Amino acid sequence: MGTEIATLGEFGLIKHLTEGIRLENESSRYGVGDDAAVLAYAPDKEVLVTTDLLMEGVHFDLTYVPLKHLGYKAAVVNFSDIYAMNGAPRQITVSLALSKRFSVEDMEALYAGIRLACEQYHVDIVGGDTTSSLTGLAISITCIGEADKDKVVYRNGAKETDLICVSGDLGAAYMGLQLLEREKAVLKDATDVQPDFSGKEYLLERQLKPEARKDIVERLAEAGVKPTAMMDISDGLSSELMHICTQSNVGCRVYEEHIPIDYQTAVMAEEFNMNLTTCAMNGGEDYELLFTVPIADHEKVERMEGVRLIGHITKPELGRVLITRDGQEFELKAQGWNPLK
Amino acid sequence: MGTEIATLGEFGLIKHLTEGIRLENESSRYGVGDDAAVLAYAPDKEVLVTTDLLMEGVHFDLTYVPLKHLGYKAAVVNFSDIYAMNGAPRQITVSLALSKRFSVEDMEALYAGIRLACEQYHVDIVGGDTTSSLTGLAISITCIGEADKDKVVYRNGAKETDLICVSGDLGAAYMGLQLLEREKAVLKDATDVQPDFSGKEYLLERQLKPEARKDIVERLAEAGVKPTAMMDISDGLSSELMHICTQSNVGCRVYEEHIPIDYQTAVMAEEFNMNLTTCAMNGGEDYELLFTVPIADHEKVERMEGVRLIGHITKPELGRVLITRDGQEFELKAQGWNPLK
Repeated sequence: MGTEIATLGEFGLIKHLTEGIRLENESSRYGVGDDAAVLAYAPDKEVLVTTDLLMEGVHFDLTYVPLKHLGYKAAVVNFSDIYAMNGAPRQITVSLALSKRFSVEDMEALYAGIRLACEQYHVDIVGGDTTSSLTGLAISITCIGEADKDKVVYRNGAKETDLICVSGDLGAAYMGLQLLEREKAVLKDATDVQPDFSGKEYLLERQLKPEARKDIVERLAEAGVKPTAMMDISDGLSSELMHICTQSNVGCRVYEEHIPIDYQTAVMAEEFNMNLTTCAMNGGEDYELLFTVPIADHEKVERMEGVRLIGHITKPELGRVLITRDGQEFELKAQGWNPLK
Repeated sequence: MGTEIATLGEFGLIKHLTEGIRLENESSRYGVGDDAAVLAYAPDKEVLVTTDLLMEGVHFDLTYVPLKHLGYKAAVVNFSDIYAMNGAPRQITVSLALSKRFSVEDMEALYAGIRLACEQYHVDIVGGDTTSSLTGLAISITCIGEADKDKVVYRNGAKETDLICVSGDLGAAYMGLQLLEREKAVLKDATDVQPDFSGKEYLLERQLKPEARKDIVERLAEAGVKPTAMMDISDGLSSELMHICTQSNVGCRVYEEHIPIDYQTAVMAEEFNMNLTTCAMNGGEDYELLFTVPIADHEKVERMEGVRLIGHITKPELGRVLITRDGQEFELKAQGWNPLK
C-alpha cells in the first residue's frame, strides 16, 4: 500500500515532491514556496499561458497507465500547446487532488514523470497546489512560455493558397489506446495471461509517452518559415482543420493519400477491422503540429524532415474537403474526442 | 434539471460561457480561443503566477453554497494570493470538470460569479479547459498578475523588531462555516424549517463571498510602506505566522488582546461554546493580509484604516509566542485546515 499521505500533510508532501528542484530558466525568478511564483520575461517576449485539467476515469485509466507515464504526458501535452503558438515552454504549475487510495510513493512516481518531462524540455516547476479528492485523481497543469513578439502564430491567419502541413504521423496514439483497452478486457477474464505487445511498441509509446514537437518549431525558425496558422493535434486532424478554417474564415482541401500514417498503425487498424483514414483523421492525442505556410515556402517545407504536405487552403465557400485515394470528395466532419459526451 | 451540457459539447459550452468577454488590461493580448493565451507585460514588471484546485466535497458543499458565490470565491482567493505578493491580478484561466448532474444553467451561475469577481477586480478571463468528471465538480483557477520589479514582497523578509500587522478581522469565515454546517444538519431532519440567519449576515458573507484586500495593498503603496514580508491568511493566522517565521528565520510575539475580531464572531463563538481566540487564530479562509513592516513605519501603519498591529518579530531562538490577555505565554501551533487529513 505504501506510505499514507496524511503522515506528511499538505506542506510536507509538497516539500517532499519539490525537493531539489533548481530553476533553470532566466525568466524563473522565484518558484515553489510563496503565495505566487515570480517570473520576469524579457521585454521583446510575449508570454503564453495554457492549462489542462485531467480527470481519472475520463482522461486516463490507471489500470494500464503507469503514474510516471501519466505525469510525463500531463506535462508534455501542455508544452505542446505552447509550441503550437510557435513559442517555447518555460514554467509549469502542478495542482493535484488525490483520494486516500494514493500513497506517497504513488505521488513520487507521478512527480518523477512530470520532473523528467520538465528536464527534457527545460521547463521549471514553479508552483502548484496539492489537496485531496473524494474519489480519484485530478491533475491540473498550467504552462507558461514565451515567444518573440512578432513570432506568435495563431489559428486565424491561414490564407487562400496556403499549404497545409502536418508533422510526424497520425492515428498511432489512438491505436495504442485501442490496444490497451483490448488487453484490459482480455486480462479481466484471464489473470495468468501476459499481454504480448511485441511489434506494437510504437503505438504504446505514442499513447503512453507522447512528445511535443519542439524540433519542428526549431526547424521552422532555422528555415526562416513563419506559419500563417498553427495548432497542435489533440482532438484529431479533422477537428483541428475545422478550427483553423473557422477561425481563419477559409476552406481546405486535404488528400487522403498524403496523410502520414505509420506502418504499425496500418497493421493494427487492419487487425481491428477499422478504417485507417478515419483513425488518422479522428483518433486524436497525436500531439503533432498542424500548420499552414505561404505557397512561397513550398520548397522549404517540402524538404523539412518530419513534415508532410497534406493539402491546401481554399476560399471559404469551397468548404472543407477530404479527397480520397479514388478521387471522391467528402465534407470534413469533426468526430474527434468530446470529453463532455 | 436544466439543459444537458452534452447538447452544447465542450467547444459550444466554452463559447457560450465566455461570450461577450472583453479584455480590459493592456497586458492581455489574446484571450480564449487558441492553444494558449498571449500576454505582454511591461519591462519594469515582474509576472506573478498562482493556482488553486478546488474539489467538491473537500473545499465546498453545494448543499449550502450557491454556484454563483462559489465562482466568485474561487476567483477571489486567487486574487488574494497575488495581492499577498504586493501585486495586482490581471488574468485568470478557468478549468472546470463537471459530472452529468450539472446543467448548462449551473455552469452559467458558476461563471456569472467568476465574471463578477473579474469585473470587480479588473481581471481578464483569458483561457481554461472544460471537461467532464465521473463525480462532482472540480475548479482549477490560475491567476497571473504583476508587480513593479522592486516591489514584490515575499514571506522570507521579516526582520527582528519588525511590527506584525493584520488587515480586517479574523475568525468570521470560520464561524460562518460552522453556522452553515449546523443549519445543514438541522434541515436534514426538518424540511419545513427556514434557517434564520438574521444578525449573522457578516459571518455568512465572509464564508460565502470573501473579498481580497486590494484596498490594503493600495493603501500601503500610497503611504510609501513596503512590507518586509507578507502573505494572505487562508489556513489561519497561526499557520501563516509560522510560515513567515520559518522562511524569514525569525521568532514572533503576538498579543491575544490585539487580534481583531468582529462582534458577530464573538457572539457566535459564545453560542457554539467555542474558544474565540482559537477560532481567530486557526479558523482560516479569512483572506486578510498578514504582513510585517520595519518599526520606522510604526506611525504610518498605526493610522492606516483596516490595519491592526498584533505583535512584533523577534530573534528565532525566542520562539513563536502568543501572549494571552492574562499575560501567559503559549507556543504557537498550526492547527489550521489540512486538506490532506
